[in-house]
Amino acid sequence: DFAKLDHHRHLRSGFGEVVFCQGKSLEHLTEIYRRFYQHDTNVLGTRATKEQYEEVKKVIDCVTYDPLSRILSIEKEKQEKKGLVAICTGGTADLFVAEEAARTAEFFGSNVVRIYDVGVAGIHRLFSKLEDIRKANCIVAVAGMEGALGGVLAGLVDKPVIAVPTSVGYGTSFGGVSALLTMLNSCAEGLAVVNIDNGFGAGYMATQINRLCKE
Amino acid sequence: DFAKLDHHRHLRSGFGEVVFCQGKSLEHLTEIYRRFYQHDTNVLGTRATKEQYEEVKKVIDCVTYDPLSRILSIEKEKQEKKGLVAICTGGTADLFVAEEAARTAEFFGSNVVRIYDVGVAGIHRLFSKLEDIRKANCIVAVAGMEGALGGVLAGLVDKPVIAVPTSVGYGTSFGGVSALLTMLNSCAEGLAVVNIDNGFGAGYMATQINRLCKE
Amino acid sequence: DFAKLDHHRHLRSGFGEVVFCQGKSLEHLTEIYRRFYQHDTNVLGTRATKEQYEEVKKVIDCVTYDPLSRILSIEKEKQEKKGLVAICTGGTADLFVAEEAARTAEFFGSNVVRIYDVGVAGIHRLFSKLEDIRKANCIVAVAGMEGALGGVLAGLVDKPVIAVPTSVGYGTSFGGVSALLTMLNSCAEGLAVVNIDNGFGAGYMATQINRLCKE
Amino acid sequence: DFAKLDHHRHLRSGFGEVVFCQGKSLEHLTEIYRRFYQHDTNVLGTRATKEQYEEVKKVIDCVTYDPLSRILSIEKEKQEKKGLVAICTGGTADLFVAEEAARTAEFFGSNVVRIYDVGVAGIHRLFSKLEDIRKANCIVAVAGMEGALGGVLAGLVDKPVIAVPTSVGYGTSFGGVSALLTMLNSCAEGLAVVNIDNGFGAGYMATQINRLCKE
Amino acid sequence: DFAKLDHHRHLRSGFGEVVFCQGKSLEHLTEIYRRFYQHDTNVLGTRATKEQYEEVKKVIDCVTYDPLSRILSIEKEKQEKKGLVAICTGGTADLFVAEEAARTAEFFGSNVVRIYDVGVAGIHRLFSKLEDIRKANCIVAVAGMEGALGGVLAGLVDKPVIAVPTSVGYGTSFGGVSALLTMLNSCAEGLAVVNIDNGFGAGYMATQINRLCKE
Amino acid sequence: DFAKLDHHRHLRSGFGEVVFCQGKSLEHLTEIYRRFYQHDTNVLGTRATKEQYEEVKKVIDCVTYDPLSRILSIEKEKQEKKGLVAICTGGTADLFVAEEAARTAEFFGSNVVRIYDVGVAGIHRLFSKLEDIRKANCIVAVAGMEGALGGVLAGLVDKPVIAVPTSVGYGTSFGGVSALLTMLNSCAEGLAVVNIDNGFGAGYMATQINRLCKE
Amino acid sequence: DFAKLDHHRHLRSGFGEVVFCQGKSLEHLTEIYRRFYQHDTNVLGTRATKEQYEEVKKVIDCVTYDPLSRILSIEKEKQEKKGLVAICTGGTADLFVAEEAARTAEFFGSNVVRIYDVGVAGIHRLFSKLEDIRKANCIVAVAGMEGALGGVLAGLVDKPVIAVPTSVGYGTSFGGVSALLTMLNSCAEGLAVVNIDNGFGAGYMATQINRLCKE
Amino acid sequence: DFAKLDHHRHLRSGFGEVVFCQGKSLEHLTEIYRRFYQHDTNVLGTRATKEQYEEVKKVIDCVTYDPLSRILSIEKEKQEKKGLVAICTGGTADLFVAEEAARTAEFFGSNVVRIYDVGVAGIHRLFSKLEDIRKANCIVAVAGMEGALGGVLAGLVDKPVIAVPTSVGYGTSFGGVSALLTMLNSCAEGLAVVNIDNGFGAGYMATQINRLCKE
Ligand SMILES: Nc1ncnc2c1ncn2[C@@H]1O[C@H](COP(=O)(O)O)[C@@H](O)[C@H]1O
Ligand SMILES: Nc1ncnc2c1ncn2[C@@H]1O[C@H](COP(=O)(O)O)[C@@H](O)[C@H]1O
Ligand SMILES: Nc1ncnc2c1ncn2[C@@H]1O[C@H](COP(=O)(O)O)[C@@H](O)[C@H]1O
Ligand SMILES: Nc1ncnc2c1ncn2[C@@H]1O[C@H](COP(=O)(O)O)[C@@H](O)[C@H]1O
Ligand SMILES: [Mg+2]
Ligand SMILES: [Mg+2]
Ligand SMILES: [Mg+2]
Ligand SMILES: [Mg+2]
Ligand SMILES: [Mg+2]
Ligand SMILES: [Mg+2]
Ligand SMILES: [Mg+2]
Ligand SMILES: [Mg+2]
Repeated sequence: DFAKLDHHRHLRSGFGEVVFCQGKSLEHLTEIYRRFYQHDTNVLGTRATKEQYEEVKKVIDCVTYDPLSRILSIEKEKQEKKGLVAICTGGTADLFVAEEAARTAEFFGSNVVRIYDVGVAGIHRLFSKLEDIRKANCIVAVAGMEGALGGVLAGLVDKPVIAVPTSVGYGTSFGGVSALLTMLNSCAEGLAVVNIDNGFGAGYMATQINRLCKE
Repeated sequence: DFAKLDHHRHLRSGFGEVVFCQGKSLEHLTEIYRRFYQHDTNVLGTRATKEQYEEVKKVIDCVTYDPLSRILSIEKEKQEKKGLVAICTGGTADLFVAEEAARTAEFFGSNVVRIYDVGVAGIHRLFSKLEDIRKANCIVAVAGMEGALGGVLAGLVDKPVIAVPTSVGYGTSFGGVSALLTMLNSCAEGLAVVNIDNGFGAGYMATQINRLCKE
Repeated sequence: DFAKLDHHRHLRSGFGEVVFCQGKSLEHLTEIYRRFYQHDTNVLGTRATKEQYEEVKKVIDCVTYDPLSRILSIEKEKQEKKGLVAICTGGTADLFVAEEAARTAEFFGSNVVRIYDVGVAGIHRLFSKLEDIRKANCIVAVAGMEGALGGVLAGLVDKPVIAVPTSVGYGTSFGGVSALLTMLNSCAEGLAVVNIDNGFGAGYMATQINRLCKE
Repeated sequence: DFAKLDHHRHLRSGFGEVVFCQGKSLEHLTEIYRRFYQHDTNVLGTRATKEQYEEVKKVIDCVTYDPLSRILSIEKEKQEKKGLVAICTGGTADLFVAEEAARTAEFFGSNVVRIYDVGVAGIHRLFSKLEDIRKANCIVAVAGMEGALGGVLAGLVDKPVIAVPTSVGYGTSFGGVSALLTMLNSCAEGLAVVNIDNGFGAGYMATQINRLCKE
Repeated sequence: DFAKLDHHRHLRSGFGEVVFCQGKSLEHLTEIYRRFYQHDTNVLGTRATKEQYEEVKKVIDCVTYDPLSRILSIEKEKQEKKGLVAICTGGTADLFVAEEAARTAEFFGSNVVRIYDVGVAGIHRLFSKLEDIRKANCIVAVAGMEGALGGVLAGLVDKPVIAVPTSVGYGTSFGGVSALLTMLNSCAEGLAVVNIDNGFGAGYMATQINRLCKE
Repeated sequence: DFAKLDHHRHLRSGFGEVVFCQGKSLEHLTEIYRRFYQHDTNVLGTRATKEQYEEVKKVIDCVTYDPLSRILSIEKEKQEKKGLVAICTGGTADLFVAEEAARTAEFFGSNVVRIYDVGVAGIHRLFSKLEDIRKANCIVAVAGMEGALGGVLAGLVDKPVIAVPTSVGYGTSFGGVSALLTMLNSCAEGLAVVNIDNGFGAGYMATQINRLCKE
Repeated sequence: DFAKLDHHRHLRSGFGEVVFCQGKSLEHLTEIYRRFYQHDTNVLGTRATKEQYEEVKKVIDCVTYDPLSRILSIEKEKQEKKGLVAICTGGTADLFVAEEAARTAEFFGSNVVRIYDVGVAGIHRLFSKLEDIRKANCIVAVAGMEGALGGVLAGLVDKPVIAVPTSVGYGTSFGGVSALLTMLNSCAEGLAVVNIDNGFGAGYMATQINRLCKE
Repeated sequence: DFAKLDHHRHLRSGFGEVVFCQGKSLEHLTEIYRRFYQHDTNVLGTRATKEQYEEVKKVIDCVTYDPLSRILSIEKEKQEKKGLVAICTGGTADLFVAEEAARTAEFFGSNVVRIYDVGVAGIHRLFSKLEDIRKANCIVAVAGMEGALGGVLAGLVDKPVIAVPTSVGYGTSFGGVSALLTMLNSCAEGLAVVNIDNGFGAGYMATQINRLCKE
């Protein structure tokens, strides 16, 4: 028995189990989706390849795939949406992570506003969007290279910021380590960090925070 | 002019500026506290030494110092407390960070429950406290060495977990890097991470989350 | 003479030499298997590619290959099996390493029980299997990402645990380094660690320990 | 309540809880020893300083301290000793770790043979001791700098080897990382590794293995 | 002959040799200053300790020492000052590096404007000083922790920015590495970086650039 | 809206925005070039692939591509050139970075002299070119492997040197880290460093410096 | 002019210039070989690909290529051979580096004895070859993974040992870093190290040492 | 028995055993020197502290100590000196390592010429000494910070160069790692490297090479 589905998770966390598709064999992955499908639950899968999608699709027709965010999901019934989460990026190249965050947040029931390409190299772009950002209950800041967006945002708003370093960059960006360290060392308070390229984790936690709000 | 106090911060974030005492000269630090004091605001200072405390004390009598958390603060009027934040540690050696988190959260207006020494080596200790932990709106998980507490907690609760790696350990703990990586790579969702030993940052963000709750 | 087979090893260790197939040219590898075959011994080869298998197969028909564990072996006569080794994994993606461990242990004469996908994100799955695990003389804990399984297991059993970090993960998992550090820094005692993805080494040492037991 | 003693551990592992003294305040440590003492159990504490010893001694007279291994222990009744564990070192500077391993193994009930200063720079010294080493059920190999002793030993014996890298060295020894990597990458099989300077962990696991043997 | 003074350097670079005081013995350092003094040139020494100052002072009375910047210098005749260099810091704790830069730039003939404690956590402080900064021919940006100041500045001005990461911070600031990486990965153009805490190098190069300007 | 073009940048910096092509999707990139084209400005794009070029070319015929420097640009009207920048390399393999620097400098209005393959292994080659190099207002030193060229040059000239480490090398060159560290630790003054392979950043800053000169 | 051939090098070092083929374009490489060919000298090129060989071959018919060592050379007249260099490897997978060393040493005039696959996991294989090794004036020790061969050899012979770490291994071998650190930290004296996989550098220096010997 | 003296080493290597004093207790070190003294051999000890010297001195009066090189030695009869080794340094701060190399080479029988403070920042100083350096059979190049001296020297001479990185520097010198990487990646041939600050290893190997020469 290669996999033990955690049907109990919904009870503990209020959200269903999430499948980490990366590195799973086609057989294993298809079988996992089949079992969830039979159990009649919505399923979110992350870091799926197009090949995995096509294989699962053969067995479960209603599965959908978004190539930018690499999310492979079954939504038997749409979750009702509440509150607001803002997802910001430093540049255009960070979109694949931002979309993973945004779609995760939407999947679990958050309204999302997307504010992309507002990095610190042209900081007036960020200022022109501040009013929109301040409406959210939680802000996700996605940035690669120097990764300064998270700290600058945290210094400008009064809501918690979840910062996601991305692997965008070259040389000493070290696949996202530079952005990660920037975010961990932010002088602005009200910022916590998830793994490099982990849009999923940020979207999930943003929703946990967002649903705490009673409006 | 060596320091520009950010009196505007309270407007932006709802909290006053926080002083990073580490590495500041005695003259500079005393002068900063003097200016805040005149401005009639509460002040929180982190990572202060006993020597710094004694120097500031000479000028501002009402300053208080807690040697375990290294917090140097002036509280002209106590903040009213709301909601609940749970602060957990893996071991006894992590207390200096946990207390920085706890006192920061209290300073800014959170009720705090402390649940210390419940690391995964004797995991039944954690289970016996789960009911208490689940009452909080936000959980802070403080752990050094392997740092597994954060992920285990996130797998057991439905509230956001802020994980703080500590520098406790030796050899390949690399001053907290081992615990940091564990936390960033958690398979459990609903977890974000702050800098090594940054109890302050965790307590602050926990309060931001806690005050979002309308009860 | 490009290779010096260590026929003497069986005398020293009680086990035959093991071939490290990775990076060997097809000519060299085939020649090495041919020589062992003539010497009339069982052979275990690790980290072999499908292409290497097909080439060796041309010369030695009885060679077998398992694509998941990447083991390429000749078993002239099956080793009799004794005792019990438990092989546990955190997730499904760790199976390729777990199977290398399991098949190595079986090749050298251990009975093996496989307990897969019991990682700490849903820790009740591990508890439901504890009784089975406690029957083994030695436990192998295979996990990537945060790698907490090893330490949690060591805190729950009274037998030695060999922990194998895997390269499963992304970003700050750094190809297994995160899991490795978690395991080296475990607060639970009774745990030792082998190289990242080294299922072979764990299965081998588990068998050395298992055969020490007199039942 | 700053500490939760794990009195249950003896039931789970067959050994009592062990105190990690490093970084604990004098008050906390004394209180922990006092509680164990009242509970009438043997106690092993590791990485204790002389100052900690003197403080605990004031309250519990029968506590003993070994400055080389830094072990602070209470032995109400000596554990009976069985089997044999061999503890080898590369050089004289590794003794502080080797003694931690040896005394831990003895504390929990193993006979120990010490074979010190047999590093690979003068490899004939190791060969002259091989017969003694081969009598043990488990071998602990302690070495700093290049750390080659573990792999060389594993190639010469048929029992499991637990390798302990030490922080002995300078420059690129990086506080034990060089030795650690050597040990993790050993080409010889039958070797697993614990944290840098973790003599305690090695002695503990060696005893777990040793007591599996029925003679 | 332990030291070869480079009297020729003034011809090559237009500036005299600079003494790296750190790690030099008292005898060696005093002798070096004595030789420069006899040669009748101004001397700049960096990273000097108070003890070194007192020893050199015994032999050369006109030597002066600034404890914040750790500069030990002999100025037989003051250099005439031209142009303008702006030196900015993120926080108050970065002053020791900023002062090394400022005094080096002044020593070699630049006018300097100091703009301290304008880090991105309270970014309005920076904006209120932009007009002053834009008057300079070259800007030095000194920051520790996240180190975002350099990139933010480069995005706001049209002059070259020399960024100096400082060792201010803790945990994952890794003694300045976090700030260094942020600066090397800046998305804003017109930024180059010197070694951690190397205020001297930044002040020197700023002066090279400043003197290129013909006013 | 996936991208916010920074048309305001020319006002702030005197240069237009630069497109970071790497990792952008074909659709996004083409759209960005189309928008700039309509805005009637010159555009410089860096790190473009041949595939990206061909796609953009379909929409904007006047776009040009240089495969060595990977620059994708639209030059509606050539910038007038002034002053002089010298671009030097250690070896022939560094040309791809040097050409990125040279073409960037030319694009923004600098005259450029190219002095390639003058690394320190045959240092007489550098000396024979020194007179040419000394005519420039700013020198760009491009080198991989050991990266010593930057420091040697800075010791021989009186103008600012911008050093660019390249990813040329193998083993412990660590993709340019070795050269980067060499350059950051140069004992010669008057040297600042940009990211590994960042010819663009060096050419840009060299032009900023070059245009400061009034001839 | 993209390349400056160092024809003067033979005068300085007694050996001709060596071409680093990796990363050079086909046009550049062919042109470089053409120029050397016209100059009537032997040429050694390292790290060449098969594609580069085929391209150069079109222009210079007498060029030869060895795919294992990746050496691309023109030998107009064979160098006379003297003395003896021993080249040893830990395993079979290290041969590609060992052959680069061996062919370099032969190219520049050393006799070479090859002793392959004598790593420390079966150390008796090394002992059986010691007499042969001791005849050499200089020993090259090539090993990956744990890299212990260099230090063990240095402890057994009285001639200088040049150790070459290889990128053979996986996980924590970190592409040769583990073997490199082992070699740099060797407790045995008489050992120096070159870059990972740098067989060429070792063969070159071994020949420099070998030709110092007057027999 | 804490130490096994390797009296056999002189037979294997032609040199006596060398004591690594660092980290040895006073009792152990004194006992080791006493045993060697009784055995009537010369002894070289490295990295000794003044305190160790004073303790050993109490027992063996003829022991001598040099505080700069930290060498603690007994020379019953001076070794006759032959050939020539050149020891060069980049700066004055590198002398402590250079002297360890020089005294080791002299102890084992080499003539030594010292050429100090000839680093690449003022490269004419090196050129003025080249004739002297070229007379040696082997060159030791000692440098910290950028560490370029080794490669520059290797490009100018025809003898083997042993490069020693030193821990001199700050920030990104990372305790000698920057210099180490520079040396390992040298483009000039004929260079091999020893551990950071390992003057002893360089002096030893230089003597092995020097004594190969028949004059
Ligand atoms: N322990 C801490 N860790 C991280 N940031 C802090 C800490 N304490 C204060 N800060 C932040 O550092 C800034 C103050 O720095 P300074 O102006 O140097 O006192 C403020 O933005 C604080 O919120
Ligand atoms: N997957 C593996 N990981 C580590 N060592 C291995 C592995 N497979 C084989 N070995 C060891 O590598 C050595 C054989 O290397 P070789 O002679 O190159 O085949 C033997 O000592 C094996 O025990
Ligand atoms: N703080 C510093 N950082 C980097 N290089 C320096 C510093 N101070 C002086 N130097 C350089 O170090 C060299 C002098 O080294 P030394 O001969 O050891 O005094 C000169 O080239 C100086 O320009
Ligand atoms: N090769 C490069 N290296 C570093 N930064 C660059 C490079 N090319 C463009 N940029 C900067 O990256 C930003 C553009 O990012 P984007 O909006 O994603 O195109 C601008 O601020 C550019 O100046
Ligand atoms: Mg953009
Ligand atoms: Mg405890
Ligand atoms: Mg699962
Ligand atoms: Mg010894
Ligand atoms: Mg401030
Ligand atoms: Mg060349
Ligand atoms: Mg082999
Ligand atoms: Mg000097």
